[in-house]
Amino acid sequence: MTHGLPKYFTICQKIIEQIKHGKLLPGMKVPSEHEIIEKYHVSNTTARKILQEIENMGWAVRIKGKGTFVRTANVERAATRILGFTRNMIEAGFTPSTRLLSARHLPGGYSAIINDRFYAIKGPVYMIKRLRFADDIPMMLEERYISLAFCPDIAERNLEGSLYDLYNNAYGLHLTEVNQMLSSITLDDPKVMALFHLTQPISAFLVEGVTFIAKEIILEMEKSIYRGDKYRFSVRAT
Amino acid sequence: MTHGLPKYFTICQKIIEQIKHGKLLPGMKVPSEHEIIEKYHVSNTTARKILQEIENMGWAVRIKGKGTFVRTANVERAATRILGFTRNMIEAGFTPSTRLLSARHLPGGYSAIINDRFYAIKGPVYMIKRLRFADDIPMMLEERYISLAFCPDIAERNLEGSLYDLYNNAYGLHLTEVNQMLSSITLDDPKVMALFHLTQPISAFLVEGVTFIAKEIILEMEKSIYRGDKYRFSVRAT
Repeated sequence: MTHGLPKYFTICQKIIEQIKHGKLLPGMKVPSEHEIIEKYHVSNTTARKILQEIENMGWAVRIKGKGTFVRTANVERAATRILGFTRNMIEAGFTPSTRLLSARHLPGGYSAIINDRFYAIKGPVYMIKRLRFADDIPMMLEERYISLAFCPDIAERNLEGSLYDLYNNAYGLHLTEVNQMLSSITLDDPKVMALFHLTQPISAFLVEGVTFIAKEIILEMEKSIYRGDKYRFSVRAT
Repeated sequence: MTHGLPKYFTICQKIIEQIKHGKLLPGMKVPSEHEIIEKYHVSNTTARKILQEIENMGWAVRIKGKGTFVRTANVERAATRILGFTRNMIEAGFTPSTRLLSARHLPGGYSAIINDRFYAIKGPVYMIKRLRFADDIPMMLEERYISLAFCPDIAERNLEGSLYDLYNNAYGLHLTEVNQMLSSITLDDPKVMALFHLTQPISAFLVEGVTFIAKEIILEMEKSIYRGDKYRFSVRAT
């Protein structure tokens, strides 16, 4: 029960739940002041406060003279900022969490062609596979290939948090550049679908990337799947 | 027949055709010097020239000690550069062309939410729908919403070329910024599939964008579909 919580707050939560669970989709109007008054029997001051709060929490945008609309996507990723999943989720108003699925040493290293260039990390490399959540919804499945030259004891660290924080705090490494290549794919591998609790294929982003700690010095490489129904990438060109 | 063309050139063309038509996929090895010698009965000088030529034309990358590999994607778009389709295609080694599908005046203007912001162009707006080709392959379907305040006689212009060039040359407009939002979608609308000569759905990028000619001054907005089997977006974060 909601005993003890202010009424405006529980109504806020109800509307936000509708957005989170896709009953109110991006671009759709959230209930108007008038509709909130009618439905929940609150004053217009409370109704206004509710809409303000939903907007403040980042779930909707108010457009003068038009109404309040659900934000364009559940999560937006600024493609031109070095921004880890953890911080990205916190900024978007979610609680991030991570499950480590597997980890192993690759003595031979790792290589990939990204944006037409061949990149390689000499072995041994530590490969981890992780599933990343926002408010317990699986959002992203990632493989990271980490240079053991720079992070020799990474296998003994907590690998269910932000790797960017770990690089920084445990190894004093500062990321200078991330190059990524985005593909649009159909997520139809039954094993991956099961991880995302999907019963049918959806479109998704495949992100292949390389992270540098100095010019031409690679710290890690990445191969991740971002579900297309939860993610948008934003890009600014000048 | 290939009468009159040098042998190395016709072999180049054959291999490039295999790449263009997806028989050789991004990341796959193109035939080695040795395989070219065996298959086409040429000297090792000619075989080397062929591989060099394919690389020079941008279809493959040679990796020391590993071989020559088909480039990661047919077309890559640097998401952080203001780069029109026409120039993008020329840089990628294709011949671009454009078919105007429809055009009309929208007296009420146009608006969209992009990267969580509401953008609007006051009417009248000129809306054009175009299909854009690379070497006669349909690559991208676009809707452009152009401010008639800045381009009053655009309806009388040639709309089957680069709009960026037109803005610049005919109206003296200089683009300052492009904000875009990338979604991963399933291209399954039968009408759109027919335009792309597709017999079954594929994944694709939906690109919604807004183009500025000064701070907060919108020249045009865009809503385009880039086929996912032909496109990658490259992003660099610093």
